[in-house]
Formats: sequence, C-alpha cells, structure tokens
Amino acid sequence: MTENRFGAGAAYIRGQFVPIAEATLPVTDWGFTRSDAVYDVVHVYRDGFFRLDDHLDRFVHSMQARRLNPPEDRAAIEAVLHRCVALSGLADSYVAMVACRGRPKLAGSRRPQDCENHLIAYALPWIDVIPPDVQERGAHFWIASNPRVPDASVDPTVKNYQWSDLTSGLFEAHDNGYDTAILCDAEGFLTEGPGFNIFIVKDGRVMTPDRGSLHGITRKSVFELCEAMGIEAVVAPIPRALLEDADEVFAATTAGGVMPGARISGRILGNDRPGPISASLKQAYWKRHDDGWHRTAVRPL
Amino acid sequence: MTENRFGAGAAYIRGQFVPIAEATLPVTDWGFTRSDAVYDVVHVYRDGFFRLDDHLDRFVHSMQARRLNPPEDRAAIEAVLHRCVALSGLADSYVAMVACRGRPKLAGSRRPQDCENHLIAYALPWIDVIPPDVQERGAHFWIASNPRVPDASVDPTVKNYQWSDLTSGLFEAHDNGYDTAILCDAEGFLTEGPGFNIFIVKDGRVMTPDRGSLHGITRKSVFELCEAMGIEAVVAPIPRALLEDADEVFAATTAGGVMPGARISGRILGNDRPGPISASLKQAYWKRHDDGWHRTAVRPL
Repeated sequence: MTENRFGAGAAYIRGQFVPIAEATLPVTDWGFTRSDAVYDVVHVYRDGFFRLDDHLDRFVHSMQARRLNPPEDRAAIEAVLHRCVALSGLADSYVAMVACRGRPKLAGSRRPQDCENHLIAYALPWIDVIPPDVQERGAHFWIASNPRVPDASVDPTVKNYQWSDLTSGLFEAHDNGYDTAILCDAEGFLTEGPGFNIFIVKDGRVMTPDRGSLHGITRKSVFELCEAMGIEAVVAPIPRALLEDADEVFAATTAGGVMPGARISGRILGNDRPGPISASLKQAYWKRHDDGWHRTAVRPL
Repeated sequence: MTENRFGAGAAYIRGQFVPIAEATLPVTDWGFTRSDAVYDVVHVYRDGFFRLDDHLDRFVHSMQARRLNPPEDRAAIEAVLHRCVALSGLADSYVAMVACRGRPKLAGSRRPQDCENHLIAYALPWIDVIPPDVQERGAHFWIASNPRVPDASVDPTVKNYQWSDLTSGLFEAHDNGYDTAILCDAEGFLTEGPGFNIFIVKDGRVMTPDRGSLHGITRKSVFELCEAMGIEAVVAPIPRALLEDADEVFAATTAGGVMPGARISGRILGNDRPGPISASLKQAYWKRHDDGWHRTAVRPL
C-alpha cells in the first residue's frame, strides 16, 4: 500500500488540490496584509459532515457581508470540501473554507473592488480547541481584562481571522495558569472566547450572550438539544456578575463540540468538575452524532 | 545584460532571499488564520532609507507588544532590509518587515506561546496610498459610518493587519464616489484612515488625533517640519464637528508622504484644491528628502 500524500491534510487553492504543506498564500495577498478574508470550519465525524448546509449558509453570509466573491459558487464549494476530505482519507477531520480578497488585477490599485478574490479549502486531522484531558477535568476559563472588539466596528457574525483581542486574552489566561480566555465587551457583558461560544447554566437554565458573538453552529445545536431534553435555554445579555455567579459554564465550538468548564477566574464552580447539565449536553451532542444527526456522508473519490 | 529576477520585488522568508512571487506563507500560519502578526513599512527614496531607525524602533515595539520573537535580532533585520532593496535594484521602493506567529512546534497545540515565530521582509516598487493625480487635485475623504476599533481592544500603536473596519470604510467611501475613508471612534472623535494618519488645519494650526491612531513616522516628520516652518502643531482630540469645520485636511503616511485633501464627506474645503499649509508641508517633505534628511544609504550587494 502506498502512503497517501494527502494524509497530513488535503487542500484546494488556485483551483488545484494539493497536499496541505503545499497550500501557500503570497505574502502580498490582502487576505493576509489586510486580514481581508472570511472563513468557516465544518467538522467530519466518522466519514460524515456535521451540519454542512448550516456552515455553507454562514460562509455565504460572511462572504456577502465582506463583498467577497470567489469564482466557485456554493455547489462548487461544497464539491471542493467533499473532495478535500476524500483525498485526505481522514474519517474525522475539520474542514476549513476561506474566501480571500487576493491581489489587485490592476497593479498598484489600493481598491478592494479591484482584487481577484479566491477560495481556499482544506481538510485537516481533527483537533479539539480545548484538549480532551482538560475537558475531562473541566476547563478553567479566564475573564480577559481587555474588552472584545465591539460589534459596530467588526461584525462578530461574519467569521473572521481578526483575533488580536482574543489572542491578548489567551496570553493573559495562560500567564495566570488558566486554559483559555473569555472576553467581555466594554460595557461588561459576556461575549465569546478564542474559537468558541460560551454558555452558562444558572438555576437549571442555559444562557448564552446576545452580543459580541458568532452565531455558532454548535451553539445552535445546543439549543436543539436543550429543547429535546426539556432544558430552558435563552439568548440574553449576560453581565459579568451573572457569569461569575453561574452554576456551570461550558464552551461550544465545531472544534470540540460542547466543552464543560470547572473554573472562572478564581471561582470554582460546583465540585470543580464539569456540571451535570453541561456533561449531559456534551454526552447528547456526541450520542446524536452516532445516530446520524444532521449528517451528510462524505462523497468517495 | 540579464534581467534581474528580483526586479518585481525581493523578499526574505524562512531565512532565504527569493523573488517576491515566490514569497508565500502556509495557509495554516497563525499570522494568517489569527491575523497574529505585526509589521512595518519603510520607504526608500533615491537609494536611501527614510528614518530607518524610527521604523525599526516601532517594529520592535510592535513585536514586543504581541510577544513575537523571530530568530533575527534588530541588526539582522536591518541587514535583511538592506539586502532586499539591493537585490531588487529599485531606487525608490517600499520595504515591509513582518513578524508572524507561525505554527505550533508541538502539533495540535492551540497556544500562541508554542509557535515558531518568523520574519518576512520584502522590497516592492514604490506605490502611493493615494494616486498622484488624486493628490494633485486634493483627495476626497469620506467619513465612514462604522466606528474604528477602540484602542482598549486593539492597540493602534502596534502596527497590524486587522483592517476590517478600515476596509468597511473604504467600500463606503468608494460607493459614495470618494477616494478614501477616515474613521471616527464610537465617541465621534477622529482617528485615522486605511494606511494613513489624518491631519486638519484650522486657523493656521495643524492638528492630528490623540487617539485611535498609529504613531506614524510621517506624522512625526510633519511635526518636525511644522516646527522648522514656524507652524503651530498639536496632538489633540478632534471631534467630528471640528473635522468638518477644518480649513484644510491632509493624510500622512510612508506610502505617499504628505497627501493633501480637498473634500470631506460632502464639504468642499477652501477652493476645492489642496490648501496652502498642506501644500507647503508636502513640498517641504520631499525637498528635505532631496537634502538627505534622516537618510540611510542602502548598502550595495
């Protein structure tokens, strides 16, 4: 049997499928030099995409919001994603799609309208945002001292790479011995963390912020699970004091699913372990995956 | 005579000097996927860098602020810049230096501390942020409706690629038939534009914002020129009403120098031409270049 040269990951760039190591961007692409790009990430679990249509819907929304228009239409993008996964041979993977501004067709132009937008996609081996052993004991979340960029300046529902405020929070979290960060906005309301939505549980009720947050696909799944399990769940403003007074906390993201927490900035929640509602949501999330929930089988080569 | 393969631009990446077209970044570099990078741009005019030390000082400040630590020290970075320009053979160029987060040394890590930071540099043919013919008639600035990202979330003195709010402003400016955009913050105070500081002239006094702005090297040069020319110049809060009531307006940036304006969002300033103080600052800026002001000769190969 020959080794699969796409085994470390398969990418699509400039219309070609290449091993991930060969997927590179010019250093002068505005997707880099102006962070003028949007993206999305869908996961594949046991040879099936999870909520592929939802991710494609959001990706199209993000592209339209930033007037990014690569040559591939939605059906072509979907086909590219299938082929990246099939080439990689990975049963479990995360699959990124990126629309980049590119470079001006007319040399010297400084107008984004003059650029040749392009699509990048790639399938990589599965990775959790929060390592599995940390999820097991319950993640320790640090409330960052710097505020999240406000929605009026950068729309958080348009999935983007502008992570500077999130990265600042991460450094501070690690400096303080915490696993990851969550950010409040300048008014002191909870927003999100680096790569995940955040939820709290208070008196049996599940809550997630109404502002400063991506409309997460896993977040949407949590609401569906809560409905099925008879748990009240709301989108609402969450002042920092309410966060600090939570019974439970958990993160939700494609790259890891439902990930329970145990501590928030010096406070130990419950028994310093994942809380019962968080744990049952996590369990249900993966159980449903096994049952084929929102599944689209990866098309073979 | 053989053609110089670096003539379109010379780059340094992964420790090698390559033609600009070969300077590429993995699509999985956090410099791209988290916009976790800082940069600076110095210009070369007639075979001499302008204020090279100031740019290196600021680049080091930016790197330290984001805990970016590529293997090359300041002296090595300076040598790389000289060599990029010399290889390109360009007499007039702009020269970028970029520090990138890179990728985790430990596969699977989500910690910025675990990444292999790296330096990119390149010299490209000179380009003005605002085309010369537009500078001639006076640029038309559009006041964007979206606010600039606040300083507390992303430090504007750390030169970064997170241009989403600036790009939004640019689109709106072009939609309205304007050349470029300037942004106010959420409180309505003037900040900066995409790639430049902004100045106003009111009653003979030159003013530039005290917030939301890069500490521009050209901005610094303008203050030195004002001092030499006996023009009062201040860094101060500039509410939108004061901007709209300005006698003159001009932009200041490495990629173009002092660039006078003629209109601000529907208002025509003076005679719809560059104002006298702006024009004299522009003239002095380039005249001083010819006199060798703050010049460091490019080292030959």
